Amino acid sequence: MRSAELIEVWRGGQRESLHCGDAVVCDSKGLIEAWGRPGQIVFPRSSCKMIQALPLIESGAADAAGLSDRHLALACASHSGARIHVDAVGNWLAGLDMGEADLRCGCHMPRDADENRRLTCGNEQPSQIHNNCSGKHAGFLTLNRHLRGGAEYVDPDHPVQQAVKAAFEEVTGEISPGHGIDGCSAPNWSCSLAGLGRAMASFANPGDDRRGRAMRRLTEAMRAHPALVAGEGRACTILMRAMGGRVAAKTGAEAVFVAILPDPGLGVALKVTDGGMRAAEAAITALLVHLGALDGNDPAVGTFLTDPIRNWRGMAIGEMRTAPGFPA
Amino acid sequence: MRSAELIEVWRGGQRESLHCGDAVVCDSKGLIEAWGRPGQIVFPRSSCKMIQALPLIESGAADAAGLSDRHLALACASHSGARIHVDAVGNWLAGLDMGEADLRCGCHMPRDADENRRLTCGNEQPSQIHNNCSGKHAGFLTLNRHLRGGAEYVDPDHPVQQAVKAAFEEVTGEISPGHGIDGCSAPNWSCSLAGLGRAMASFANPGDDRRGRAMRRLTEAMRAHPALVAGEGRACTILMRAMGGRVAAKTGAEAVFVAILPDPGLGVALKVTDGGMRAAEAAITALLVHLGALDGNDPAVGTFLTDPIRNWRGMAIGEMRTAPGFPA
Repeated sequence: MRSAELIEVWRGGQRESLHCGDAVVCDSKGLIEAWGRPGQIVFPRSSCKMIQALPLIESGAADAAGLSDRHLALACASHSGARIHVDAVGNWLAGLDMGEADLRCGCHMPRDADENRRLTCGNEQPSQIHNNCSGKHAGFLTLNRHLRGGAEYVDPDHPVQQAVKAAFEEVTGEISPGHGIDGCSAPNWSCSLAGLGRAMASFANPGDDRRGRAMRRLTEAMRAHPALVAGEGRACTILMRAMGGRVAAKTGAEAVFVAILPDPGLGVALKVTDGGMRAAEAAITALLVHLGALDGNDPAVGTFLTDPIRNWRGMAIGEMRTAPGFPA
Repeated sequence: MRSAELIEVWRGGQRESLHCGDAVVCDSKGLIEAWGRPGQIVFPRSSCKMIQALPLIESGAADAAGLSDRHLALACASHSGARIHVDAVGNWLAGLDMGEADLRCGCHMPRDADENRRLTCGNEQPSQIHNNCSGKHAGFLTLNRHLRGGAEYVDPDHPVQQAVKAAFEEVTGEISPGHGIDGCSAPNWSCSLAGLGRAMASFANPGDDRRGRAMRRLTEAMRAHPALVAGEGRACTILMRAMGGRVAAKTGAEAVFVAILPDPGLGVALKVTDGGMRAAEAAITALLVHLGALDGNDPAVGTFLTDPIRNWRGMAIGEMRTAPGFPA
């Protein structure tokens, strides 16, 4: 079985580039639509942050620390390191009597243009709180406080990560073939794309048990705070806003994208084989329109899929297109 | 016929991403090695700037304007917009009694970190001279002065672009299926990847006629000035330096890469289907090692192919690999 052609890039009436990949749509019973290889093993990367946050709630740690929906949205975020993100995570850590030095995510310059400029022009280095995963790590630290684990909470054998692994395997319904180490140093467990899609369908159809309540709470936190989950100009934020809070959407490095659609009770997962984010954003946009969650005339559809590609003088010089057969 | 698997990205002992594409090696008689589809139609984008510069020399315009090898290297460049590039192009235009307003390439922020920071922190906008193609456009303006053409020298029907088209079709040995408009607003003619490879082999085996002399002059200018052709930290510059000036290498947008090897008389051309530049840089590195032009132990090979991929804390978390069968 081969990957499917998903997104094409055209110029001057000729197809210049092509992105292949795999995509699935699942309901509570399993796979209902697939393109390419639903069995393909993928690293979900940051697209599974809502899974990684399940033990934070299920353990009672989130309630013990008095976390709000804003904290939970940040735990599921790949944020831009804007002041709204950095200040919130800083306050969260302070509330735990902890600080930047307790994080294990490493530093990188923020994607947010204003904060990036502030650091660049002020000759300041970014801190670990600027790391796009700092909210997830604040969640790990909150859970770790509750579990009384050691300081190296990103070690794959640490109780925090073992709790994450257990939740991950339960919601994907698979034994993970193994883990890689993510950009933020946390272990990232692999699964089949269908397993990731089934997990998203579980979030879309939560039960009334402890897990179901945790899933509902995380999904609602993401849907209520699209700007905390990513940031201004970012695909997750723009797409969630365009869908009026009805859908949670999350990207992951190397061109993964997932979506949780509570209303029809669907979960979506896709991975572009080559890791090209432009194609992952275009493909999830096409799938959300296909599933009726996103209005095909919404400006967000233009932003990520249908608007002309313009050059440095503003000339329309090409376009992205869904490949024949994707998504319909 | 299908594209070939070229470059893999691994994490945690699992293949996370894969880049497919097409690649050819040609000598003066034609194709001698190929991966994927040598007949695939591609836009060479900036990889064909040395072809676009042929009329500048062959018309006598370069000599009439007293252009040096540094000018010719800039005419073939996708430069970083560092001061060495911006000052040189600014002086070139001034020598023509022209200025930034005569350019038609549009503005974008320079890739060079120092110049980018200077503009960002000084609240300055970039000029068209910062455009990575401004040297090519200064070459177009020089040719246009000689041809006494109109100001809109990027129109596909303008004498400058018609001269470029004629040279392009002659050196590729093909009638182009058509053109697209490039990021810099110049027309970019498409050809088969084999045609692009044959063109590079012509540059590697120049005759003693007017065309051969122009080809030799352009290739020597690129080899002598690797920092003008791209910039510090950039693949073309690093790879050309690593090969001690023996090879000219040039990238193009959407993951094209070409190389001209005068010593064994070979031309190389490749395009990664998905447009991923990391894979184009890794693939050309692998091919240059394969052809004996680049020492496999050179640090440049590490930079673009064999060094571990490190995360924000410096941990080695993955690696790039050539796919089985590529290049050997």
